[in-house]
Amino acid sequence: MKEIGIGLIGFGTVGAGVVAGLDRNRAMLAARLGAMPVLRAIADVDVDRDRGVPVDRSLLTTDAEAAIRRPDVDVVIELIGGTGVARRFVKTALELGKPVVTANKALLAEHGHEIFALAAEKQADIYFGASVGGGIPIIRALREGLIANRIESIYGILNGTCNYILTRMETERMAFETALKEAQKKGYAEADPALDIDGVDTAHKAAILASLAYGFNVPMAAISIEGIRGLSATDLAYALKLGYRIKLLAVIKRTQPDGGEAIEVRVHPTLIPLDHMLASVSGVYNAAMVTGDLAGRTMYYGRGAGREPTASTVLADVADVVRNLVKGSKRRVPPLPAEGTAFRLLSIEAIRSRYYLRMTLVDKPGMLGQITSVLGRCNIGIASVLQSEAHVGRSVPVVIVTHEANERDVVAALGEIDRMPGVSGPTVRMRIED
Amino acid sequence: MKEIGIGLIGFGTVGAGVVAGLDRNRAMLAARLGAMPVLRAIADVDVDRDRGVPVDRSLLTTDAEAAIRRPDVDVVIELIGGTGVARRFVKTALELGKPVVTANKALLAEHGHEIFALAAEKQADIYFGASVGGGIPIIRALREGLIANRIESIYGILNGTCNYILTRMETERMAFETALKEAQKKGYAEADPALDIDGVDTAHKAAILASLAYGFNVPMAAISIEGIRGLSATDLAYALKLGYRIKLLAVIKRTQPDGGEAIEVRVHPTLIPLDHMLASVSGVYNAAMVTGDLAGRTMYYGRGAGREPTASTVLADVADVVRNLVKGSKRRVPPLPAEGTAFRLLSIEAIRSRYYLRMTLVDKPGMLGQITSVLGRCNIGIASVLQSEAHVGRSVPVVIVTHEANERDVVAALGEIDRMPGVSGPTVRMRIED
Repeated sequence: MKEIGIGLIGFGTVGAGVVAGLDRNRAMLAARLGAMPVLRAIADVDVDRDRGVPVDRSLLTTDAEAAIRRPDVDVVIELIGGTGVARRFVKTALELGKPVVTANKALLAEHGHEIFALAAEKQADIYFGASVGGGIPIIRALREGLIANRIESIYGILNGTCNYILTRMETERMAFETALKEAQKKGYAEADPALDIDGVDTAHKAAILASLAYGFNVPMAAISIEGIRGLSATDLAYALKLGYRIKLLAVIKRTQPDGGEAIEVRVHPTLIPLDHMLASVSGVYNAAMVTGDLAGRTMYYGRGAGREPTASTVLADVADVVRNLVKGSKRRVPPLPAEGTAFRLLSIEAIRSRYYLRMTLVDKPGMLGQITSVLGRCNIGIASVLQSEAHVGRSVPVVIVTHEANERDVVAALGEIDRMPGVSGPTVRMRIED
Repeated sequence: MKEIGIGLIGFGTVGAGVVAGLDRNRAMLAARLGAMPVLRAIADVDVDRDRGVPVDRSLLTTDAEAAIRRPDVDVVIELIGGTGVARRFVKTALELGKPVVTANKALLAEHGHEIFALAAEKQADIYFGASVGGGIPIIRALREGLIANRIESIYGILNGTCNYILTRMETERMAFETALKEAQKKGYAEADPALDIDGVDTAHKAAILASLAYGFNVPMAAISIEGIRGLSATDLAYALKLGYRIKLLAVIKRTQPDGGEAIEVRVHPTLIPLDHMLASVSGVYNAAMVTGDLAGRTMYYGRGAGREPTASTVLADVADVVRNLVKGSKRRVPPLPAEGTAFRLLSIEAIRSRYYLRMTLVDKPGMLGQITSVLGRCNIGIASVLQSEAHVGRSVPVVIVTHEANERDVVAALGEIDRMPGVSGPTVRMRIED
């Protein structure tokens, strides 16, 4: 049986998962593929630490460049992550025309343009299924399963750390900091959790999904990002009372704000109705709801991170590369689809949405009336109001759910409201997607 | 741009969806594929009826064989359905070595062995993504996305008609017949609903999924099938009270009943916990939960039937064929994976499960005691009992939820219980999956 040589660059958590998965399921994979994937080199800065997986120590090297250049390495798996040396190694492999499999969302979100252009120039394959959604074959669904569709929208819960924290905050009425500490203790959050909780990781994934859906490189700078840091359990409780659950959502959608084709790409805590499928996604699980013009709503759910789920998708990409090598058919599915349409990226100020607003008012007669009149003047319709019994002179929370309104108008209205005497502290504002 | 000629056999609902989808998204598809899919012939017994889609009437023919044989037809889409002429047409295309795209679950479930063998002999491609799950790319996920996994289990809600009926029965406390009539009125159920409500359609799909998961032809005769005909709203209400929802489920799983490798394939109304993702799948939507040894739990959700969703998946398969033709790489992904393992199919009598039992007892002292002692003697542990206040001499329903037990023991126990004086009518029995 033909052997396909693999060079693995990066022997961390996912790398160890790939080694373990290959070891366990190699015979099955070989039978399914008609060729035998064989590890030829494993490069990492640390070749001594025990990863708890069976590994031929003679494969280990600290020289990644040499591993990539080995003539018996037919495919390079990059699992270092980040935009530093990983970028160089991926480029080295592509320069040699070798197919690359990577799970590196940061690299593709920040330098996808450069990487994809190099891959095209060298006619080399690049697969990145595990860069979004871990064990969920969402990228494959977009690239192939839904290829006949115009994508209307993608709503994604793409970060398990945030979803775990939000689930715990809601079900246990925990404070954000407590839930974060628990997530860190369980290994679901990093010691420095900024990339996750500030929404950057979700935005990286949103950039990749949006690029796949609309066929052009969506730059990170064009994405509006709000994370979950400091979110209050109070708001999760109010949302629940109103029939919503708060999720950190990547929102990608096609709109025609003024007749032209535009897309929105944004990441923020979002209220979604309890009967929406995404509202059932709890804990570390991820999911993406994709609406296509033909398929309608489809959803993909599973473990968005972790050693084995991510390895599952990395190995599915390796399987694709093996099939390409066996059949001699490179560049079967190009990294991004070639689209005819030119899309414009809508800035966050230009979107329309429904809003959840929570204000803290020092109760005095007429306060609510003043606020609703500001909203009315700014073209913001009110769908519902939640106000507990007030005691004159004490501060009281008021929650307002709006009809669809212009973001710009909401920003203007809140600028005015938050300066009103009797309004204490800035209004909490979250977008709603139905 | 290279043109790829399509012969469409069957111009019914899905056929019209394919014609409309191609018409609408042709330029986009061509840009994505680097080749232009072009309809060259549309065959149907009725070439006069207006399908409400734009169609060049000169393409229409009643001679399917001739359409298939046209030299400018490179790929054949079979959308007639059933195991009659469709079988002949698919075989004609494969005999000519032409790639076939089909949505015909009955054909593949009943004659997959023959069709796949012919395709292998002629080295022709056969794609059947739309045979299960309509617009949900579940077959693609199994064939490619999860290829590195050993599949532990698949739980599927695979029939929209049944799911719609069950949803209406539960939420509106409707009788089965009323919900069925409503489904027929809305076009979700056929005039003769037997294939759907008796579970045969779900079993066809289960056979295909099981074959894909385990790499051998799973015969329909080996599948135990119970439909939803005559299911009582009472049981849906009791289930809800116990924290479960009843769904018609295809259950496919790998077990080691006595150390050897075996698989179970069965279709029956099933109680699933309310917090299980599948419990959130309502109305005509379908979903499949697939557990792999690496990926863990993944779920795929969407519209399981209908003109456009099914066309979406048919066209995704056409896209695969087009890519194969452009790259000259046939048989890239064989219809069934080649596995090393020999699996044995477990008969329904040999399975273990938890059970929901509803008995109607004429209340007299000691009845429940007698019943629990029969269950105990048959090695059936009781997890919970639900009995409303009883009135001596009146009949009273008793609901028992068991621990995991042998199907064989449950059948024996119920045989005994249902003959006891004071037990009126056969016990309602449903399996539980957690």
